[in-house]
Amino acid sequence: MKALVYHGPGSKSWDDVPDAQLIDATDAVVRVTATTLCGTDLHILKGDVPDTAVGRILGHEAVGVVVSVGSAVTTVRPGDRVLVSCVSACGRCRYCREARYGQCLGGGGWILGYKIDGTQAELVRVPFADTSTYPVPVGLDDEAVLMLADILPTAYEVGVVNGGIRPGDTVAVVGAGPIGLAAISTAQLFSPSQIIAVDLADSRLEAAKQFGADVVVNNSREDVEAVVASLTDGLGVDVAIEAVGVADTFELCTRLVRPGGRVANVGVHGGPAVLHLEDLWTRDVTITTGLVDTWSTPTLLTLVRSGRLDTRPFITHRLDLADVVRAYATFGNAAETGALKVVLHA
Amino acid sequence: MKALVYHGPGSKSWDDVPDAQLIDATDAVVRVTATTLCGTDLHILKGDVPDTAVGRILGHEAVGVVVSVGSAVTTVRPGDRVLVSCVSACGRCRYCREARYGQCLGGGGWILGYKIDGTQAELVRVPFADTSTYPVPVGLDDEAVLMLADILPTAYEVGVVNGGIRPGDTVAVVGAGPIGLAAISTAQLFSPSQIIAVDLADSRLEAAKQFGADVVVNNSREDVEAVVASLTDGLGVDVAIEAVGVADTFELCTRLVRPGGRVANVGVHGGPAVLHLEDLWTRDVTITTGLVDTWSTPTLLTLVRSGRLDTRPFITHRLDLADVVRAYATFGNAAETGALKVVLHA
Amino acid sequence: MKALVYHGPGSKSWDDVPDAQLIDATDAVVRVTATTLCGTDLHILKGDVPDTAVGRILGHEAVGVVVSVGSAVTTVRPGDRVLVSCVSACGRCRYCREARYGQCLGGGGWILGYKIDGTQAELVRVPFADTSTYPVPVGLDDEAVLMLADILPTAYEVGVVNGGIRPGDTVAVVGAGPIGLAAISTAQLFSPSQIIAVDLADSRLEAAKQFGADVVVNNSREDVEAVVASLTDGLGVDVAIEAVGVADTFELCTRLVRPGGRVANVGVHGGPAVLHLEDLWTRDVTITTGLVDTWSTPTLLTLVRSGRLDTRPFITHRLDLADVVRAYATFGNAAETGALKVVLHA
Amino acid sequence: MKALVYHGPGSKSWDDVPDAQLIDATDAVVRVTATTLCGTDLHILKGDVPDTAVGRILGHEAVGVVVSVGSAVTTVRPGDRVLVSCVSACGRCRYCREARYGQCLGGGGWILGYKIDGTQAELVRVPFADTSTYPVPVGLDDEAVLMLADILPTAYEVGVVNGGIRPGDTVAVVGAGPIGLAAISTAQLFSPSQIIAVDLADSRLEAAKQFGADVVVNNSREDVEAVVASLTDGLGVDVAIEAVGVADTFELCTRLVRPGGRVANVGVHGGPAVLHLEDLWTRDVTITTGLVDTWSTPTLLTLVRSGRLDTRPFITHRLDLADVVRAYATFGNAAETGALKVVLHA
Repeated sequence: MKALVYHGPGSKSWDDVPDAQLIDATDAVVRVTATTLCGTDLHILKGDVPDTAVGRILGHEAVGVVVSVGSAVTTVRPGDRVLVSCVSACGRCRYCREARYGQCLGGGGWILGYKIDGTQAELVRVPFADTSTYPVPVGLDDEAVLMLADILPTAYEVGVVNGGIRPGDTVAVVGAGPIGLAAISTAQLFSPSQIIAVDLADSRLEAAKQFGADVVVNNSREDVEAVVASLTDGLGVDVAIEAVGVADTFELCTRLVRPGGRVANVGVHGGPAVLHLEDLWTRDVTITTGLVDTWSTPTLLTLVRSGRLDTRPFITHRLDLADVVRAYATFGNAAETGALKVVLHA
Repeated sequence: MKALVYHGPGSKSWDDVPDAQLIDATDAVVRVTATTLCGTDLHILKGDVPDTAVGRILGHEAVGVVVSVGSAVTTVRPGDRVLVSCVSACGRCRYCREARYGQCLGGGGWILGYKIDGTQAELVRVPFADTSTYPVPVGLDDEAVLMLADILPTAYEVGVVNGGIRPGDTVAVVGAGPIGLAAISTAQLFSPSQIIAVDLADSRLEAAKQFGADVVVNNSREDVEAVVASLTDGLGVDVAIEAVGVADTFELCTRLVRPGGRVANVGVHGGPAVLHLEDLWTRDVTITTGLVDTWSTPTLLTLVRSGRLDTRPFITHRLDLADVVRAYATFGNAAETGALKVVLHA
Repeated sequence: MKALVYHGPGSKSWDDVPDAQLIDATDAVVRVTATTLCGTDLHILKGDVPDTAVGRILGHEAVGVVVSVGSAVTTVRPGDRVLVSCVSACGRCRYCREARYGQCLGGGGWILGYKIDGTQAELVRVPFADTSTYPVPVGLDDEAVLMLADILPTAYEVGVVNGGIRPGDTVAVVGAGPIGLAAISTAQLFSPSQIIAVDLADSRLEAAKQFGADVVVNNSREDVEAVVASLTDGLGVDVAIEAVGVADTFELCTRLVRPGGRVANVGVHGGPAVLHLEDLWTRDVTITTGLVDTWSTPTLLTLVRSGRLDTRPFITHRLDLADVVRAYATFGNAAETGALKVVLHA
Repeated sequence: MKALVYHGPGSKSWDDVPDAQLIDATDAVVRVTATTLCGTDLHILKGDVPDTAVGRILGHEAVGVVVSVGSAVTTVRPGDRVLVSCVSACGRCRYCREARYGQCLGGGGWILGYKIDGTQAELVRVPFADTSTYPVPVGLDDEAVLMLADILPTAYEVGVVNGGIRPGDTVAVVGAGPIGLAAISTAQLFSPSQIIAVDLADSRLEAAKQFGADVVVNNSREDVEAVVASLTDGLGVDVAIEAVGVADTFELCTRLVRPGGRVANVGVHGGPAVLHLEDLWTRDVTITTGLVDTWSTPTLLTLVRSGRLDTRPFITHRLDLADVVRAYATFGNAAETGALKVVLHA
C-alpha cells in the first residue's frame, strides 16, 4: 500500500510500504476513504516529538471502511463504515472505565501516527476496534464526520466541557486557529451570551466571527483585558479557553477570568508558564488541562446527524490522498493559504 | 389604587383598595407597568387553593418602577425599573443560602397573590426587595422581560435544569401549554438533538413546532411510546418533562424515559400518580419535582439582553391593566382564544 | 462438577452437572472458593422470576481462582484470585462506556445465576472476564472481599451515592435487612451526622445499631414521622434510603424526606407504589432507582484493603459449599436463625 | 473597651479604644467571649498587608454574645451566643447568591480585622449579622466551635471540597501547620484510603499522625515523589492539597498528582509559581484556588454537635484575652512553643 512515512525531522514521503495487517485479536484494519492533517503532525515532522520513530506512518484521523477484524472484535464488521478516533481505548483499564481514554493504561491513548502507524495511508490497523471506532450514521458522508476524529472532541471536551460553560456565560477563546474555532463552534452548544475571540491575526479573527464569536479582539494592538472588563462589568469572563499553547496566552487567560471562573487549557505547550498565585490564591479560580478522551464522539455524531452541528466550515482544502505531501505544504503554510483543515480523499 | 380582588371561588373584581404600603424595613413598593395572568391564578379563582383568603389581590408576575423602599433596602432605589419575581426570598434562611428560594423558611417563597397581595394592581408591596427584584437591563422593554417573572424560570429550572439536558439528548415534553412551550424554548439552551412535544390538541402542537419542537405527537390518536421507541433505537428519551399536572401524563413520562434517564415534573398536581416500581426499580431512573426558585433569573435576563432568548412569542394578547377581568376571560378560555400569555399594560 | 440446580418453583438440589467451560473468547472459568446466597436467589426459587429456566445453576457472588481464559482475555490469567461480580459488563456498549454496567446492552448486566449458570457451583463460566472480575488484593482472604460481589456495591451505589449523602446529613434507612445494613455501613463513608434506621423487627434494629445507626425506630409501634421531625427541626431527613421493596416503605420515604432532599430506592419491588404528587410537586424532591453497576468495586476493594471498611460483620454463618441446600434453609429462615449472609467455602 | 490595635509594621498593643457600636442597620455588636490568632494576623503585623490601616483592631475569629443589633437584623437577637465568621456576607450580590461569600461584592468578604476593626477586642461590630453569624448550638462551649470561625471551613472548603476527595482516594497534604492539619482532619469526612502528610519538621509530622495522617514524609530528607509512587502503583495521588503557600510546595503538588487528579491550593502565596504546562497539558489535571466562603459553617457545626468532628486538638494554648500580646509571642514562635491555635478567653 501507499503511505506517508516520516523519515526524520523535516523529511517525509509518500512511499510503498507493506499493507497494514491485523496483529492482535482486538484489531481492525480499515481502508481509509478520508483523512486529514493536524498541527501535531507538523510537530512530529519538526522533530519535536522524539517518541516518534523514523519510518512511522503519520496521521491519526480517518473515516474508512473496515476490511478485516480480529477474532475478539464483536461490534465492528468488514464492510462497516467507521470513524477512526485519534484515541485508542483498551476499554479495560481504570482510566478507560472512567471514560478517560486519553489516559489509557492498557496500550491505548493517543498512539496512532505517533507510536504506531497512522491514518495517512491506504490502510490502517486500528487497535481495540470495538472501543476505538464509531459507526458512521447512514446518510452522512466522510466530510460530515471526519472532523469528529480529533478537532471537535478535543475542543469540546478539553475546552468547552472542562470549562464548564453554562447558558448566559461570557467566554473568551484565546487563539483562533482550528482548535480555537472548534471551541467557538462547540461552546455554542451551551448557549453562552457572548463569545470573545482573541488572536494576533485579523484573518483568523474574521474566521472566528464566521464560527460564532460575538466580539473579536486583536491582541497585537488592542488591550484585551480592558475590552473584557468593559463587557463584564469589570469582573472578567466566566470561562477562558487557551487554544494557542504558549505561556503568554495561558497567563492572559488567568488574568481574563473572573473570581470563581475557569481556565481550560487546550493548547499544546512546549514550556512552562508563570502562575501568579499571589493574585490567584484568593480568586476561586479553577484551571484544567487535558488530552482528548473522545468520550463525546457519540454525542457529536448525534448532533451532526440532527443538523445541530455543522463541521464542514472547517474544511478549506480538498486533495487526493496521493497528494498528501502537497497537503502538508498547504496546511503548514496556513498564514498564506488560509488553510484550516485539509481533507484527503481516497 | 385599583386592584383585581379575589372575592371567593368564582368571584373577582377590579376594585378600589387602599394603596400598597411599606410594612417591613426590607420591603419595596412598586408601581406596576406590566403584569400577566398565570394558570395558578385560575386555580385560586376556582377555589382550589384554600390558603388564599377572600379579599386577596391576585397576581405574582410584574415589571414596574420602584416607588419607595424600606430602611434596610440597599440595592434597589425609587425610580429603578425592576422585574418582580414570583418568588420572594428572605436571603437568610438555610434554603435561601442554597439559592432554593422557593423553599424559603424566612417568610418568602411563593407568597405574592397567594398569601399576600399581588401584582394585578396599580401598586404592589414586594417583601425582601433586595433579593426578590431584579433590575431591568437598559434597552429592554416590559414585554421583553415580563415572562421572566415566572414561566421562563419555572420551565428552565424545574424542567430543563432538573432534567439535566445535555447536548445531543432526546427530550420529550409532555404538555404544550405555556409551561410546556417554555420548556421547549429553554431546553434548546442545552442543544438537545431532538425535542418531541406531546399533547392532545393539534393547535398546541402547532405552537410547539413554532417554539422549536422537532417532532410532535398527538396522544389522543397516536401511540407516543411507539413514536419515541422509533426515534431512540427502542431505548426511550434521555429526559421527559411533565408539563400538564395529571397522573396519566406523569405515568407516561416514566414509560417514555430510557434506562438511566430523568423525569422532571413541572406540572401542578392535584392528586397522586401510580409509580410502577416493579418496572422502574431496575432502570436507573431519576425523578425530580420542584417549585421554581428563580435562581436563574439573572441568567435568563442576560440571555434576553444578548438576544439568545426571545420571550415575546409567549405573548398572544395585550390589554390595559384596567381590563384585567376581560383578560381572565381570554386567558381562561385558551382553547378558543388561543391565548398563551395575556399581558396587561398600565 | 457439583452445582446447586434450580428445578422449578420450590425445588433445587446439589447435582452432578457437566463442568463449566469456556464458550466465548472473552470468557474465564473460575473455580469457586467462596460463594454466598442472596435474597434474589430466594425470589427465583419461589418462582417469582420466570426468566430463570429450569436447570439453571443459581448464585451470582463468588471469590475464586481462574482456571482458564478465552483467547481475547488479556488482564486475567489462570491462577489469579478474583472476585466475580454479580454484574457482567461487555465493556463496549453505550451503557458500559458510562460505567452503567447494570444496563449493559451487549449481553451483560445481571445474568449470572439468572439467565446463565451461576456461582453456587464448583466452577463457573464468567463472561467478559476482563471487565467483570476484579483481582483480589494480596493479603485479603475470601471473606474479606466476598461481600463486594453484590451487597456492598448495591447499597453503596444505589443507596448511598444515588442518595447523594454529604457530611453532616441526616439519613433514614428504611429496612434493616442485609441491604439496609450495608447502606448503614457505607453511608458512613460520607460522614452523615445521624443515621436513623427503621424496621419492624427489634432484632434487625439491634443489628442496625451495631452497623452504625445512631437512632433506631420500630415502625410497628413508633411514629417514624414524629421521630424524624423531632430530630430534624421538623424539616425531614436529607436522604431516605428504601431497602425493603414494598409500597408502604417507599411511600414512607417520600414523607420522611425534607424539601430539597433525596429518596434512593434500593428495594426490589413486585408492585407499584402511590406517588403523592399533590404533596411532592412543590417540594424539590429527587427520587432515584437503580440496579447495581459495580463501578464502585475497585473503590470498595481499596477501602477494605486499607482497613476503612470491614465487611466481615455481615457474615453470620459459614458452611461447606456442599452444604448449600442447608445454607438455603438457614438463610431463608433469617427471622429465626438471625442470618445475614451465609458464606459457603469450597 | 480594650482591644489589640495595630500600630504599623511590628507594632501592636492592648489599648483602650472607644466601644464598638452599630453603624448600619444590618450590624450586630458582639461581646467577645473567645477569640484566637491566625497566621494572617502575623502577616499584617509584618507589614505584608498594606490595605490594613494603622489603628486597626486585629482578629477575625470569635465566639461571643450579641449585645445589640441594627434595625434590619431579624434572625439574631441580643443575648444570643454566636459564632462570628471570618467572612462577612452581604447576602445580596451575585456571589453571595451563589454562596461564594468570600467574593462578596456588596461590602463583605474577609474584612474583619483587615479592612474594619476585628475580634481581638472586648466588643466587635459584625456587619451583615444575619448572614455572617451562626447561633452556637446549645450544649457546645466556646472552644468546641471557635475553630469553625476560619481554620476548619478554610481547610474543608478550599482544600477538601475543592479537591473533590472521594472514598478510597489517596490524598497528599503538603504542609502540616494548622491549616494542613485541618485539611487532614476534615479530609477524613470523605473516607480516603490513605492520607500522606508532607512537611519539613518532624514535630509537625508527628502532629499530622495525631490528626489522622496514615503516612508522613519529611521532605527535607525523603524523596516525596518516590514515596508517593510506591504507594500509588506509580500513578500519583488522587488529590494534593497545598497548605504552605510557597512556589516549591505548589510545584511539588503538581508533580505528585496522578493523571485526572486535582491540586487544591489553600496556601497564602506572596509570589508566583512555575506551572509546567509542557508536562501537565496532557495529564487532565485540575488546579483550584480559593478564599474561604464559610458556606460549610452550618455543616461543620452539625458535625461538631453530633460528635463527628472534634476541633479541640487544635487548641494548644489558652490565655486571657488581656494577655493577647503574650499570645502573639507564643503563636508567632510555634517552632519552639509547638503552638497550633492559641485561644483567648474573656
